[in-house]
Amino acid sequence: MTDVRIDDLPVRDELRGKSPYGAPQLDVPVRLNTNENPYPLPEPLVERITERVREAARHLNRYPDRDVVELRTELARYLTKTGQYPLGPENVWAANGSNEVIQQLLQTFGGPGRTAIGFEPSYSMHALISRGTGTGWVSGPRGDDFTVDLAAAEKVIAELRPDVVFITTPNNPTGNAVPPETVLALYEAAQAAKAETAGAMVVVDEAYVEFSHGDSLLPLLEGRPHLVISRTMSKAFGAAGLRLGYLAAHPAVVDAVQLVRLPYHLSAVTQATALAALEHTDTLLKYVDQLKSERDRLVAELRAIGYEVTESDANFVQFGRFPDAHAAWQRILDRGVLVRDNGVPGWLRVTAGTPAENDAFLDAVREHLSFVGDTPTPPKEQSA
Amino acid sequence: MTDVRIDDLPVRDELRGKSPYGAPQLDVPVRLNTNENPYPLPEPLVERITERVREAARHLNRYPDRDVVELRTELARYLTKTGQYPLGPENVWAANGSNEVIQQLLQTFGGPGRTAIGFEPSYSMHALISRGTGTGWVSGPRGDDFTVDLAAAEKVIAELRPDVVFITTPNNPTGNAVPPETVLALYEAAQAAKAETAGAMVVVDEAYVEFSHGDSLLPLLEGRPHLVISRTMSKAFGAAGLRLGYLAAHPAVVDAVQLVRLPYHLSAVTQATALAALEHTDTLLKYVDQLKSERDRLVAELRAIGYEVTESDANFVQFGRFPDAHAAWQRILDRGVLVRDNGVPGWLRVTAGTPAENDAFLDAVREHLSFVGDTPTPPKEQSA
Repeated sequence: MTDVRIDDLPVRDELRGKSPYGAPQLDVPVRLNTNENPYPLPEPLVERITERVREAARHLNRYPDRDVVELRTELARYLTKTGQYPLGPENVWAANGSNEVIQQLLQTFGGPGRTAIGFEPSYSMHALISRGTGTGWVSGPRGDDFTVDLAAAEKVIAELRPDVVFITTPNNPTGNAVPPETVLALYEAAQAAKAETAGAMVVVDEAYVEFSHGDSLLPLLEGRPHLVISRTMSKAFGAAGLRLGYLAAHPAVVDAVQLVRLPYHLSAVTQATALAALEHTDTLLKYVDQLKSERDRLVAELRAIGYEVTESDANFVQFGRFPDAHAAWQRILDRGVLVRDNGVPGWLRVTAGTPAENDAFLDAVREHLSFVGDTPTPPKEQSA
Repeated sequence: MTDVRIDDLPVRDELRGKSPYGAPQLDVPVRLNTNENPYPLPEPLVERITERVREAARHLNRYPDRDVVELRTELARYLTKTGQYPLGPENVWAANGSNEVIQQLLQTFGGPGRTAIGFEPSYSMHALISRGTGTGWVSGPRGDDFTVDLAAAEKVIAELRPDVVFITTPNNPTGNAVPPETVLALYEAAQAAKAETAGAMVVVDEAYVEFSHGDSLLPLLEGRPHLVISRTMSKAFGAAGLRLGYLAAHPAVVDAVQLVRLPYHLSAVTQATALAALEHTDTLLKYVDQLKSERDRLVAELRAIGYEVTESDANFVQFGRFPDAHAAWQRILDRGVLVRDNGVPGWLRVTAGTPAENDAFLDAVREHLSFVGDTPTPPKEQSA
């Protein structure tokens, strides 16, 4: 059977020749490539997880709570406490990672004959999941400094009338936040462009918002039923392995995504583990404070070395500019430090790790400079 | 914000007026409605799960193994041991429930402009996930005795040339198995109908095969790269709460579904829990033997009472016939026993529970007969 390949099977035409999405999973001493939280969960939380999972395992022969009520209640409590806006379980929905949340949103509000837009470079799964759900994808513009150019964005929205607008703030991989007034203006533009039908959905992806200098945009939900804010426990909660994404929105949005969710999509062990982590929110948010300090240190030290650095409100930093970013990525990897080449010409992305990991990274990029024998391309000049 | 409803949002037209899929989750003494395994996991396995999850929780800040290699290896080992056909991890893929496996298959081989067929009544998620992925759905025929009428099935395949053919064996909700020679004939018919392109995919859903009098169809994979066998840990492994579905197929199929899977779709705690359960396969399969005996007892006693019963190779039994199946469902529920009305006119489905649960069910259906004051409609006569 070994002579049969993918292209011998009736796969969809648009998948032919494609590769699965994902960063290289390489075994190196310092992994700063996927924006993971470098701090393992504290041992008391590990014990609490095992207690909660033991109890769940005793009922594992039964299907999990299909409506995920307890977890949605606790997520709403967390958002209310940290987001300065009161929310209940009717405002919250959870799934296996924010990727599944986004897929459910696109199955509900996108799909064949509909269009989504994002302002790129941004989180590449927005485009990939759009294509995976048959939704047309439009790559919207960003300025040279990676901010969203409001006038240009409003123009493309008015022209193309997208059904779904993605706004990632803080943005990945660039790190910068989108000002609230820009988000509001894009929301209005999206509704105006689709005023003749039932409006457009605006999905604000706040995966990294806990690391921001500013506040969550949750209060903007007031009076805006077409706004969705997506979040994750992967980063601030140090639980990338848990795959728990969620959204906050008007209850009608939560009702709508349940029309497409696979029944019993969220396992009892995932629900139990997430509930345990939410009990330890205060401890986990202290790690966030440490990471914000380290992020600010990375920005300052990279600039002191001579790199150009994009403003960061996330747990990672975009730095450059490199005549050949992939070659620089390889040389940093040769020093035992794995960063991310997101395909943004001239730029690389590094996740804020522990102080020791960040020191190892800074040593590696200093060595890179001596290797190439010159300073990085100065700011304001575009690299190839 | 409470005046906004789903239909005020730009949901896809085909979702308007729909309700989320799922059986009623009612709190009654005896729940025999969702084909769950009535036996809780044995306490040594519960402890092994907590050990494995504790270890996974200590690394939860990192993304899980995106390729799920260890779990796929152990699933392949289980299939090899029980299926009389050697398989390796390259033949196996796992996801959050067989629903997600099916969704990934339809995103890969179905989708807009393509068609899937199943022989109904059957597992209704095949049709729902087809629609959710934009795949056209054809309801293929079954005979009055709920067997697949091969001549009729071959005719509709030749005429409609479906891209994906679902064969559920043992079938849900009817309980009967499809003979291997019928599966083979449908496979050939599906390839012949699509010979001008790259063939059709045939998905054999074996969710209940461990309860069958016969063997798994895994050996049919030999030389048939368009065949996929989907399985689950929900039933035989007593782990409905775990949401672990998987498939066995040619390695090219496993490669292909990775083009559409969401990256890191399967959490570290799910992977750890499934691995623990697979260590206890022998114990869990003893429960399967008990359930097969109880299933056979239900068939015999229901027939002795006077009901018509479809042959069952699953952990549930379809029985009838009722002039009004939903009224009968309600009266059995009034006795504290929840069975399933799958919408098959004249028939209800009951899951094999513990001996005590099955006794309670049999008492309730005896009482139902005395309530309606007559015997069920005799066999051979169609109810409305």
